[in-house]
Amino acid sequence: MEVLAAIDTLRTVRRFSDRPVDPDALRTILDAGRRAGSSKNLQRWAFIAVRDRALLGELGAVGPWANHLSGAAVAVALVTPDPRAADAPLSIVFDVGRAAENMVLAAWALGIGSCPATVYEQDVARRLLGYPASHHCEYILSFGYPADPADLVRPNRARGRRRLEEIVHHDRW
Amino acid sequence: MEVLAAIDTLRTVRRFSDRPVDPDALRTILDAGRRAGSSKNLQRWAFIAVRDRALLGELGAVGPWANHLSGAAVAVALVTPDPRAADAPLSIVFDVGRAAENMVLAAWALGIGSCPATVYEQDVARRLLGYPASHHCEYILSFGYPADPADLVRPNRARGRRRLEEIVHHDRW
Repeated sequence: MEVLAAIDTLRTVRRFSDRPVDPDALRTILDAGRRAGSSKNLQRWAFIAVRDRALLGELGAVGPWANHLSGAAVAVALVTPDPRAADAPLSIVFDVGRAAENMVLAAWALGIGSCPATVYEQDVARRLLGYPASHHCEYILSFGYPADPADLVRPNRARGRRRLEEIVHHDRW
Repeated sequence: MEVLAAIDTLRTVRRFSDRPVDPDALRTILDAGRRAGSSKNLQRWAFIAVRDRALLGELGAVGPWANHLSGAAVAVALVTPDPRAADAPLSIVFDVGRAAENMVLAAWALGIGSCPATVYEQDVARRLLGYPASHHCEYILSFGYPADPADLVRPNRARGRRRLEEIVHHDRW
């Protein structure tokens, strides 16, 4: 799939089929995240790839809109140093956003949909995933083949995004 | 260019040729940012596209490693609500990271290189770009055709990224 087509057609998918994501596809997705650029090349990220069905079921409890994780073929938790620490630079979160976008675009190119979940219940995520106290998980991405294959080719919603003219300034605000 | 190839070959480019980025290419890059997903579809971003040469020259002063902005064909300032406000969610910065990655990948597919600059001198950026006091600009992206076309096809540095096995955990940390 071409880059521009992937960016233009990417849609959030929240309902997934039972078809597993095979290890090669998962590796391609994770490797796309690994390849992302980062501030001073610090790569302040770790990815926990969850395929255990019982664990996926429990991950749905990390937030009020995180139910899609329970039905995912695989979830990828994005773990970073604590971005709320007093001296934490904004780049921790900016960089993991770049890595996440690489992952969802790589998945999309393989016909695999995705949806990000925000972790509201930090204690639940930490208990389930076991990352150290020094670390933090704000986002967990669902991945899987769409339950409805039409999701892959559905046209963008009209007005799903603001128009370019509403968000772009030239030379000065 | 294929998605996976773009992700795998994308390199930071800091030195640009004099060749301008035409309006269609610029629009494609900005539109790729516009298309990014965002928390609750809030799209908390504005993009200031700078092509004025005098202004580009001055933008190089926003930080100690921001000189590449002075030689860019176009710079795109990523403007958001203040991510350091007391109640600001992390998603402001995560989302603009997703938008930035879309832009640099779209540019790369057009043969256009890029480099992000961190704004250390907030007052300078605000004076030059004129965004409102309610807003913040942490990152400005340089775009341009590489001064050295070999940048587009240079192999990845060995050990430029940690190995996948160093950053991936399965099911639990």
